[in-house]
Amino acid sequence: MAAPRYDVLGIGNAIVDVIARAEDDFLVAHGMHKGTMALIDEARAQAIYDAMGPAVESSGGSAANTIVGVASFGGRAAFVGKVKDDELGRAFAHDIRAARVTFDTPPASDGPSTARCYIMVTPDGERTMNTFLGAAQDLHPNDIDEATIAAAAIVYLEGYLWDPPHAKEAFVKAAAIAHRAGRRVALTLSDSFCVDRYRAEFLALIRKGTVDIVFANEHELRSLYQTADFDTAVKQLRGDAKLAVVTRSEKGCVVVSRDAVEAVQAMPIDQVVDVTGAGDLFAAGFLVGHSHGKDHRTAARLGALAAAEVIQHIGARPAVTLKALAAENGLPV
Amino acid sequence: MAAPRYDVLGIGNAIVDVIARAEDDFLVAHGMHKGTMALIDEARAQAIYDAMGPAVESSGGSAANTIVGVASFGGRAAFVGKVKDDELGRAFAHDIRAARVTFDTPPASDGPSTARCYIMVTPDGERTMNTFLGAAQDLHPNDIDEATIAAAAIVYLEGYLWDPPHAKEAFVKAAAIAHRAGRRVALTLSDSFCVDRYRAEFLALIRKGTVDIVFANEHELRSLYQTADFDTAVKQLRGDAKLAVVTRSEKGCVVVSRDAVEAVQAMPIDQVVDVTGAGDLFAAGFLVGHSHGKDHRTAARLGALAAAEVIQHIGARPAVTLKALAAENGLPV
Repeated sequence: MAAPRYDVLGIGNAIVDVIARAEDDFLVAHGMHKGTMALIDEARAQAIYDAMGPAVESSGGSAANTIVGVASFGGRAAFVGKVKDDELGRAFAHDIRAARVTFDTPPASDGPSTARCYIMVTPDGERTMNTFLGAAQDLHPNDIDEATIAAAAIVYLEGYLWDPPHAKEAFVKAAAIAHRAGRRVALTLSDSFCVDRYRAEFLALIRKGTVDIVFANEHELRSLYQTADFDTAVKQLRGDAKLAVVTRSEKGCVVVSRDAVEAVQAMPIDQVVDVTGAGDLFAAGFLVGHSHGKDHRTAARLGALAAAEVIQHIGARPAVTLKALAAENGLPV
Repeated sequence: MAAPRYDVLGIGNAIVDVIARAEDDFLVAHGMHKGTMALIDEARAQAIYDAMGPAVESSGGSAANTIVGVASFGGRAAFVGKVKDDELGRAFAHDIRAARVTFDTPPASDGPSTARCYIMVTPDGERTMNTFLGAAQDLHPNDIDEATIAAAAIVYLEGYLWDPPHAKEAFVKAAAIAHRAGRRVALTLSDSFCVDRYRAEFLALIRKGTVDIVFANEHELRSLYQTADFDTAVKQLRGDAKLAVVTRSEKGCVVVSRDAVEAVQAMPIDQVVDVTGAGDLFAAGFLVGHSHGKDHRTAARLGALAAAEVIQHIGARPAVTLKALAAENGLPV
């Protein structure tokens, strides 16, 4: 087995975020479920955009945010996802490459425009997301390059990939390549409604060992096992997954393995401005720590540090170099 | 004379900002003059974009930022400027309309793309700007609608309009309409290099009374009168202008009129994050106060308040409602 060229390679929907502040009333008036992600068609995207306030555009996408976080920690990172060759697609490609992530997926030359996620940030810092998948729908198994996938120590996949029609085939192909190459596969469950849409498939991936490391927040975990009781869900997860990390916002996280369930505290912060990207950046810290051979607790603390950074400003990507931030916090990567 | 329908109508280059953090070394390596605005062609725009870090896109443009500030203070506001009918142009139009600004200038259907300003924010919070004017070059006197201009108590123009070939004709046409309708005309000098390009013309506008209110920072003022001595420049300005406001960053501002030179302090702030928009938002506060009949000192304090808000976050437009912020600070508008 060759030494990996990348610490983490992510596969996900390549999305540009369109972020505006909104009052809670706005969510109610537009039928949005606070704190969750809804898929929308182009007509609804236009209607939401027309109604929402002044916005800023910032590259996003769950796995893409994670991979940018990995690179910010100094990890060797690559991303696979589909944009169109349009202004927003070029912005997405610029931003991820400028973050020193290898990104070679060819853009779509026709078809729908680059995916956009309309994000409403309410005064409490919670984010409510509406995703028009656009060109991300065209991610196809042909976009999965065997040599690239096999060169990554960990292949990280987002549960949202179950939404576009061919992306799950790309996902399954990548997982198979990774395992043949002796690499590991990680999955984030993405969103509680996403879990609701694909519960049986996600459980099968975990139970069959297609996935080695699972990331979930407590809502997603409860949805996965259809229980309101956190401890019950953790117990089931422990039986199913080789390694899992469950994030619990300000309550920190638990690292669940066959050997132990370890709780790790969240980082204290001054003010939550925008929680967008919290889970994504937690995964970045954990994955970079894990791929560098740190113990679970240290990896989880790196995750907590990155999550704390990203929720203190607007936007889902780090505003500082996470490697430097980690060193300042006594967590050299 | 009919009651004005708008407190302030701005005419300026309609630009989308592309904002990234950069070290001072980056400015040196790319031949940029810190703190200033340079005009660039499309090839240089591409080269700068390729070299710069991950960016966020946010609607900008000097006069447009001011007008959005006026609307945020609850002022009745309109804007005239040229975008292309492309993704960034639609974002510009969305953002300014979502800020409750009337914006009816038809977009260009062909020709260059919507103007972009590549902004490097250094660790000291200073911004260095590189503007590709694109579709803003196509602002034409035909875009100046007589009834709209005549309906604004103050027409506010940016000195940057001297750069695109036909915009200055639009500027002169708008000023003439405003004065025929018994309205006032305000001008910002925009940038010290801009003053250097058009010194004689700017002085003529002020001396001939084409402009009633002048906004400048101290660098621009010194450039206008080609003197290193601030007091000498202020004395000359007092002889030339009916009313002028000179901003001096953390030293506050001076309001210069035939009757008096009044100094007004800056608002104390915790940390300068990004000075982009400081002058634009100062003008917003002053103009809204002035158009609402406040005295010069109160108008300047509203300007200082808006400037202080905008420099404490990334981006050149207010992140809070300035009307509420003013009320909280004992400055009801």
